[in-house]
Amino acid sequence: MIRWAAPDDIAAIHRLVRELAEYERSGDQVVASPDDLRRALFSDQPAVFSHVAVHDGAVAGFALWFLNYSTWTGRHGIYLEDLYVTPELRGHGYGRALLTELARICVERGYARFEWAVLDWNTPALGFYRALGAAAMDEWTVHRLAGPALHALAGQEPDQVAGEPPR
Amino acid sequence: MIRWAAPDDIAAIHRLVRELAEYERSGDQVVASPDDLRRALFSDQPAVFSHVAVHDGAVAGFALWFLNYSTWTGRHGIYLEDLYVTPELRGHGYGRALLTELARICVERGYARFEWAVLDWNTPALGFYRALGAAAMDEWTVHRLAGPALHALAGQEPDQVAGEPPR
Repeated sequence: MIRWAAPDDIAAIHRLVRELAEYERSGDQVVASPDDLRRALFSDQPAVFSHVAVHDGAVAGFALWFLNYSTWTGRHGIYLEDLYVTPELRGHGYGRALLTELARICVERGYARFEWAVLDWNTPALGFYRALGAAAMDEWTVHRLAGPALHALAGQEPDQVAGEPPR
Repeated sequence: MIRWAAPDDIAAIHRLVRELAEYERSGDQVVASPDDLRRALFSDQPAVFSHVAVHDGAVAGFALWFLNYSTWTGRHGIYLEDLYVTPELRGHGYGRALLTELARICVERGYARFEWAVLDWNTPALGFYRALGAAAMDEWTVHRLAGPALHALAGQEPDQVAGEPPR
């Protein structure tokens, strides 16, 4: 069974976030607390959303997503930040069911694209997504400013800077 | 001068969206109308935002962005969908000033990450972003479901499917 996440699911979602990060060899990077997730998902006007897969009354997996936007299509889309099913409850189709539910929301709302990022060494995942018909956006690389570099850029006054991004 | 986009900027932003897509060799993929952009940017509760750079009263460039979310940091961030300065008005620092303004918003709001995607053949842009301290997320590839593949997945009932994403 797939349903929208509820506040009572936060502990389970937080546990699964940590499990997924461990699988992605980044467990030490998870600093988010259950309260961080609660505030983001269940504020008055949330900008991030979650669905859970329920097995025998317990949360077996989750999808966490937000809206992106394309200036080419002129429409929103869904960006899937996390998708995970706990190992002992795989093989029931929960992962695919979560994807199906988000694809259904896309179609229902007229969203043009459903996107997510995959680690290049995660061969089984790459094969699974390819089989669904997902296209790998190989030409594009996400760039990230964070920490000191983000603060350094923020600290500069626009009138003190020169240069131009050629993009 | 950098400021939030206003409804009167829509025609200029739409023109710049098309210019950027041409530069990215994808001009034929822009189907968004000015009204599409207006609805997205200026609805009651928009999920996409824009800043413009103004030169002698005219829009010289724009940034269009939305909120992403990281379950590792437990915080929102800014995802920059488009950044563009019209060629004849480059060299005034407008591109960097737009980036600086968005970095400032990140820091002010406690957002952890400022991200955007760059085309792999856009060498000058890659160098510019690297010089700002941006990290290339080389290990990750965005995957996209759209069109027939998106509709096919949406049409399947969760209880009819099998298999599991290993991610």
